[in-house]
Amino acid sequence: MSQSAQPTFAAPAPLLGRIADVCRGRGLAGLADRLGALREWLGDELASVERELSSLPEGPRVVQASARHLLDLGGKHLRPMCVAIAAKIGTGFGEQARQLAVAVELVHSATLLHDDVIDGGDTRRGSPAARAIYGNAASIYAGDWLLVEALRRIRRAGIEGLVDDMLAVIEEMILAESIQLENRGRLGDGVSDYMRVVEGKTASLFRWAMRAGGRAGGLSEDHTDALERFGFHLGVAFQAVDDLLDLGGDASATGKDVLSDLREGKMTYPLVVAAARDSALAARLEAHLERPDGEDLAASEAAEISALVKASGGLEACRELAESRADEALKALSAIPDGAERRALAAVVHASIDRER
Amino acid sequence: MSQSAQPTFAAPAPLLGRIADVCRGRGLAGLADRLGALREWLGDELASVERELSSLPEGPRVVQASARHLLDLGGKHLRPMCVAIAAKIGTGFGEQARQLAVAVELVHSATLLHDDVIDGGDTRRGSPAARAIYGNAASIYAGDWLLVEALRRIRRAGIEGLVDDMLAVIEEMILAESIQLENRGRLGDGVSDYMRVVEGKTASLFRWAMRAGGRAGGLSEDHTDALERFGFHLGVAFQAVDDLLDLGGDASATGKDVLSDLREGKMTYPLVVAAARDSALAARLEAHLERPDGEDLAASEAAEISALVKASGGLEACRELAESRADEALKALSAIPDGAERRALAAVVHASIDRER
Repeated sequence: MSQSAQPTFAAPAPLLGRIADVCRGRGLAGLADRLGALREWLGDELASVERELSSLPEGPRVVQASARHLLDLGGKHLRPMCVAIAAKIGTGFGEQARQLAVAVELVHSATLLHDDVIDGGDTRRGSPAARAIYGNAASIYAGDWLLVEALRRIRRAGIEGLVDDMLAVIEEMILAESIQLENRGRLGDGVSDYMRVVEGKTASLFRWAMRAGGRAGGLSEDHTDALERFGFHLGVAFQAVDDLLDLGGDASATGKDVLSDLREGKMTYPLVVAAARDSALAARLEAHLERPDGEDLAASEAAEISALVKASGGLEACRELAESRADEALKALSAIPDGAERRALAAVVHASIDRER
Repeated sequence: MSQSAQPTFAAPAPLLGRIADVCRGRGLAGLADRLGALREWLGDELASVERELSSLPEGPRVVQASARHLLDLGGKHLRPMCVAIAAKIGTGFGEQARQLAVAVELVHSATLLHDDVIDGGDTRRGSPAARAIYGNAASIYAGDWLLVEALRRIRRAGIEGLVDDMLAVIEEMILAESIQLENRGRLGDGVSDYMRVVEGKTASLFRWAMRAGGRAGGLSEDHTDALERFGFHLGVAFQAVDDLLDLGGDASATGKDVLSDLREGKMTYPLVVAAARDSALAARLEAHLERPDGEDLAASEAAEISALVKASGGLEACRELAESRADEALKALSAIPDGAERRALAAVVHASIDRER
């Protein structure tokens, strides 16, 4: 890594080497500290976003209750942090940036509501998923409702082009979901499909968050472009770490079982890489993917698959992907003037890839 | 009725008296003629909308295939007709109006895709529903995709306020769906809930179509307001006729079974009125609504319920609702200068309430 976070954000180096420990669900205290330091630095700015998220128009309606339930489960709010920090590089975090920060979290929440319906997910952030309480139909409409609320806020911010950009991001997300749907039950086209899904589902929204914050802060096109690159690579790195945790995490630390993505018929990067290198494992994964929904992966089989993935170097490849994209993200920051905001963005990279989930 | 359609659109008077026949699935030839005359009058304008609907970006993706399937099933395209005619009252049907006409049909199609998922519908427009071919997940994302495509087109038309108006319409639709979801399995709050659902799910989009066309045609605020009132009442009348057909139609004429709404746990206006007047029927309907999904309504029971609804005057009340709203729609037209367009809008009212499905 070419650059490490500054002491301001309590970011010890080297951070990336610790991912392996994190994956075993150990030694997580430093991560919470680092995000905590960022949150403290953002102070009132992030608090005002969170206040707005917790005061969406309420009503007696089951759709609103479903959306409310998900929002009340909290989350890391990394995407609003991205908007806030990008805005602060420029003229600061004003009302426009606040609306955009709320909007990006609403879009992210909408995708979680829909994902849980599609995947039949029963838990989310360690609690019952909204669909488990209010039903699938309410979660579908709740996701739609949050998208509408998000687009309204982006419109209200009144910055030329951001509504169109978000519509393009939502379309990218949908097409990525489409690839994932088509590949459900089969191995798919390997790394190229994997990258299209990750770039569409995760990186595109981080990219938008950085662009939106930069635009709200009145930054130059050059700086906004650099921030977009930062967000894009950060998003891929973030997802690669999710994939590592899927193999190495334990439910008590991450709220998810080992190989829970495979259980939902989805290929993670370590599995994609391992399947390409080990044809016997590929056949075994394919057999599992072809099973009807709901049939579970036995613990012994999960342990064997995990061991084979590790033996094939799938975990290392995924760690390399996370590290190289984290590196790219940090490199993109070199176009941004040094200062507390640039260090904060570096800390977001570290907190994102070195985390419990 | 205060006004009847002009001969231009082959609309014989009195039209509304024929609803009863229509409900029995007879004497439908005149309706097709009347819509046909309207379509001929709109000629290239409607054809250009339909060309655009059939040439949405295609791709290998299951989500696009799912959306494509629904769009290819056609439909009456009444909402685009509303946009086109409203624009022609003003400066004419140009590129802006065309984009708005495509957008309104895309939003309508999105709601059909989502409705079929929520209701578990297997057929649509007499063919297999998209979800029956491509699955629920693809239909959920296909609906989202069409909403995005619609919002993009509205943005592209560049008329101040129309994106916000459509976001408000989509929110109204979602809240109406929410009321319907909450009332699934029970009678609900009668006429007031019914009206909120109909106004949110159906009338709001017709209202937007008229406003959008009027704005694209450069009409004054007074004229646009009148067209909105027209669209709003037309929408309620339209739905009331759907409800009549649900009780009186036969599957060969309408593609739907008798009481298919009740089978999906939904209360139509004749049922709402009849339940308020006949407590024994109310108890019977409630018992049916409480049954678990998938349990069917026996033909003999459907016939008995239909007979009780008719005996209580539920059908007459629904017919009166359709007639009074059709009347209101036609009254709203009095603010619009007389001419071929005003007569065309009157013909849309007649074609909407006097139809096979």
